[in-house]
Amino acid sequence: MSTEEMLASAALNSWKLVIGRLDKGIQTLGEEQLQKQVAPGKNRLYYLLGHLTAVHDRMFPLLGLGERLYPQLDEAYITNPDGTLPDSLSAEELKKAWSEVNVKLTTAFEGLTPEQWLQKHTQVSDEDFVKDPSRNRLAVFLSRTNHASFHAGQFVLVK
Amino acid sequence: MSTEEMLASAALNSWKLVIGRLDKGIQTLGEEQLQKQVAPGKNRLYYLLGHLTAVHDRMFPLLGLGERLYPQLDEAYITNPDGTLPDSLSAEELKKAWSEVNVKLTTAFEGLTPEQWLQKHTQVSDEDFVKDPSRNRLAVFLSRTNHASFHAGQFVLVK
Repeated sequence: MSTEEMLASAALNSWKLVIGRLDKGIQTLGEEQLQKQVAPGKNRLYYLLGHLTAVHDRMFPLLGLGERLYPQLDEAYITNPDGTLPDSLSAEELKKAWSEVNVKLTTAFEGLTPEQWLQKHTQVSDEDFVKDPSRNRLAVFLSRTNHASFHAGQFVLVK
Repeated sequence: MSTEEMLASAALNSWKLVIGRLDKGIQTLGEEQLQKQVAPGKNRLYYLLGHLTAVHDRMFPLLGLGERLYPQLDEAYITNPDGTLPDSLSAEELKKAWSEVNVKLTTAFEGLTPEQWLQKHTQVSDEDFVKDPSRNRLAVFLSRTNHASFHAGQFVLVK
């Protein structure tokens, strides 16, 4: 591998580690455990799982990687706080959505060349990107990896 | 910047964002707030701050960037769980240590070339590194960035 490929590969490995660890914890949780809050008065695990699934699903259009799989999750798990809207999927269905989104995303990430990682994401204009080329796919990807880690730290508070 | 430099720069920006946000939250916390637990029976903010400071401080020798500044933090904040040993620093002293470690580390990171990011860290042997060149500085760095995000997700649970 070239230096460029090694650098991009390290970022991809970091994503895979974070998602793999989260997934391992999530797949063991049943309906009852997913209804628990991470701390008194804070988000339920179920909400966090819906939130992460929706935020990751949004990366398809944001990074120009295809169509979303679950756009219907946004209203309940991004736009509104926990407890506002009823859950529309069962725990099993939501876990399946989470896996499906991440597997498809990871496959798309694996196909990106270092140069493609540095292309602009779709929410920045050509003009703004010329001024600030750091607004690229990789920056969004690293930010989402950190976002997943952030909520992983909350997941582990529930036994 | 070259493709290689842009890739390394994205990783560095990601670290700066995570540390900057954490730091902003931490600097507003007084002694009393730092003594709060992130959830009932879980780590105190003070412990997490000591833990992050010690883990980051360990990156100096781990990544071959110099001597540690606060090796005395390990026993209370890495080796042992919260509540085992008394806190040896005041809140102000610990916040100062946290800042000092991160500022010095970030300066060292800024001086690394893409090739240097891909060099082995000091805990892997030459032989093992030949077999698995992904065990480089960048992999450790991304892992520590995610680790900081993980605990940042716990910090925000305390008002």
